Amino acid sequence: MQKSELQDLTIHQIRQHIREGAYTSDTMGVADGYVQANLVILPKDVAFDFLVFCQRNPKPCPLLDVTLPGSPTPELLAPGADLRTDVPRYRVFRQGELVDEPTDIRSYWRDDLVAFLLGCSATFDNALRNARMPLSFLEQGMVPPVFETNVQCLPVGPFHGPIVATMRPIPDHLVVKAVQLSGRFPSAHGTPIQVGYPEKVGVTDLSKPKYGTPLVMQPTDVPVFWACGVTPQEVAMASKTDWMITHAPGHMFLSDRHYEQDAVV
Amino acid sequence: MQKSELQDLTIHQIRQHIREGAYTSDTMGVADGYVQANLVILPKDVAFDFLVFCQRNPKPCPLLDVTLPGSPTPELLAPGADLRTDVPRYRVFRQGELVDEPTDIRSYWRDDLVAFLLGCSATFDNALRNARMPLSFLEQGMVPPVFETNVQCLPVGPFHGPIVATMRPIPDHLVVKAVQLSGRFPSAHGTPIQVGYPEKVGVTDLSKPKYGTPLVMQPTDVPVFWACGVTPQEVAMASKTDWMITHAPGHMFLSDRHYEQDAVV
Repeated sequence: MQKSELQDLTIHQIRQHIREGAYTSDTMGVADGYVQANLVILPKDVAFDFLVFCQRNPKPCPLLDVTLPGSPTPELLAPGADLRTDVPRYRVFRQGELVDEPTDIRSYWRDDLVAFLLGCSATFDNALRNARMPLSFLEQGMVPPVFETNVQCLPVGPFHGPIVATMRPIPDHLVVKAVQLSGRFPSAHGTPIQVGYPEKVGVTDLSKPKYGTPLVMQPTDVPVFWACGVTPQEVAMASKTDWMITHAPGHMFLSDRHYEQDAVV
Repeated sequence: MQKSELQDLTIHQIRQHIREGAYTSDTMGVADGYVQANLVILPKDVAFDFLVFCQRNPKPCPLLDVTLPGSPTPELLAPGADLRTDVPRYRVFRQGELVDEPTDIRSYWRDDLVAFLLGCSATFDNALRNARMPLSFLEQGMVPPVFETNVQCLPVGPFHGPIVATMRPIPDHLVVKAVQLSGRFPSAHGTPIQVGYPEKVGVTDLSKPKYGTPLVMQPTDVPVFWACGVTPQEVAMASKTDWMITHAPGHMFLSDRHYEQDAVV
């Protein structure tokens, strides 16, 4: 099934196609306006520590929903969804090593698994786009490049690591507006962590992102960094926990919520 | 030691007097501008459920900080504090029954205890006062009355119960401003849960609060309800968990943070 075939469907119809395995591609641009979430699934024995890690590091790890052990239902984001089937593609890790990329994790599910859904910057990219910010990467449907910073998360138990950040080139006269717009969404990383001085967060070469394609900076562009939902995934992976399941990059969970429902003002 | 003697002291000096047992009275009006927090301490075996309960009920239970099992240090709110000694008065419960009201809980402390610090409406009362809202209960240094509503929290494990709410009479021309000001502080219950229609949340008699003194409503006053930090305490108590320790009413934990640091805009 092609992405274009999802265009006029409801969020429930789209999730049904994902559940049935009919749609297994990425969710970039799918279900316009609905909150997309990063997924991290961990065993209960480390879930408390990971929950406290998210609470102490809300910019990279804005916690949208957490399930009770064994329950695949995201009660806040989509009470009718099933996190074992409703993500287009997953990644399964054992001791930090990728072992499978299934489109359904029912065979991996256990009664002690806890699912964490975390905010995604696609939410404020929606807001930037709807505010008609003339940002070339958005207009081209591109994902911003991702850089590792030298800013460390507050560690909790086995979980530690640097904040990973997206960089968006913002025309200088729109930087304040971009700060305001993203600040309306603390549940999607909120305000930037750095404006204008990449080296202050340890980024020395904008042409060499850790993930993604570098973006051309126009003379009037300012590099602006936002904490990224890749952070909790990398932190969980580095802990080499016995088991971990995540969404595959770009293959996010689609919630029932429109991003404006999560705006604080 | 009298409350007036704390007036010109730093937050660290005030906490030192509390730690040494020299100050054991309530914290209403103490350390002007600093975030005061509700305290709930529970054993680790129910801490994950309580943490998820707070995450699912952020208006009554805005989680400011949570400690790791056995650690008495609130890493986010006051890294130098000790939650076993730095609250003026505690309440100790066993199976939901009050058994002690000590000024120090070192003798009760155990390696499996987890402390939760939750936001308090004193934060936005500060904001209302500083915005020069002419509210008589604030000017008289009174605490708003507390009502039980018929709005149920989302239950998690053993934790369930209604939202308990404070009511402030707000002159009708200032209601919108009060919504805006409190909305800047999601970490202190955020916007009201009800404006103008008490019966919509099950409150039928404003002269009979569950706690506190009823306030006189002027003809131009509108009753406005905000979720209250008494909710998580009542919920934890109703679960009749084996052990629970809380602050005594009005005897809050004083953090290092000024309330404006927690404003979202």
